[in-house]
Amino acid sequence: MSTIFTKIINGEIPSYKIAEDENFIAFLDAMPLVKGHTLVVPKKEVDLIFDLESEEYKNLWGFSQKVAKQIKNAIPCVRVGVAVVGLEVPHAHIHLIPLNKVEDMNFRNERLKLTDEEYIEIRDSITNY
Amino acid sequence: MSTIFTKIINGEIPSYKIAEDENFIAFLDAMPLVKGHTLVVPKKEVDLIFDLESEEYKNLWGFSQKVAKQIKNAIPCVRVGVAVVGLEVPHAHIHLIPLNKVEDMNFRNERLKLTDEEYIEIRDSITNY
Repeated sequence: MSTIFTKIINGEIPSYKIAEDENFIAFLDAMPLVKGHTLVVPKKEVDLIFDLESEEYKNLWGFSQKVAKQIKNAIPCVRVGVAVVGLEVPHAHIHLIPLNKVEDMNFRNERLKLTDEEYIEIRDSITNY
Repeated sequence: MSTIFTKIINGEIPSYKIAEDENFIAFLDAMPLVKGHTLVVPKKEVDLIFDLESEEYKNLWGFSQKVAKQIKNAIPCVRVGVAVVGLEVPHAHIHLIPLNKVEDMNFRNERLKLTDEEYIEIRDSITNY
């Protein structure tokens, strides 16, 4: 049974894609805490991020660094925060979250409801960098 | 003016150290959200983690992977979460937080007050792995 992220990677579920290479993918979170909230996911379906093989793990973070810089350039924020929680989807993923205050990273907050047009605008603003 | 983390690195402020090498250090958070909450810090005093040079940035995450595995072995938890927020101390740092529920990573939660004996016990349980 594939995880929801593998379905996104395989194109079975649509997403607003920010970046992709052979091993990793980044797309906008479908339940964003703030505008620009992005997930970075290894294509290999592994539950715990720390169980990735060392080189792949470090490369995942390297990929995330590039995406975070794009987000920082595109989305007004004090800094881009990072979170790995993973209690809901058993497929390792990194949250990149534009932060203006610590409360922006509270996963208990209500999620934004964005229109397709808003998602497209956010995606394009990030991928333009 | 050195950051509080540079003072810890230089030994001017005491800490419960988990691991250290030439470039990185890990020690128990002095205001822990849960037992085993650990900070991983590059010795270079840089504000934004994504501004670290690519190789150093990836090696910081590699160092964190080893520390996270030690924490997971020592502290009862579902998984070790990761957070980079950094709105308070302008010196990049990674939070490694033993998680049992998403609320364990809410930075607005009241912090634990531990005794020296409790810190020592936690530190020794982690460094024994």
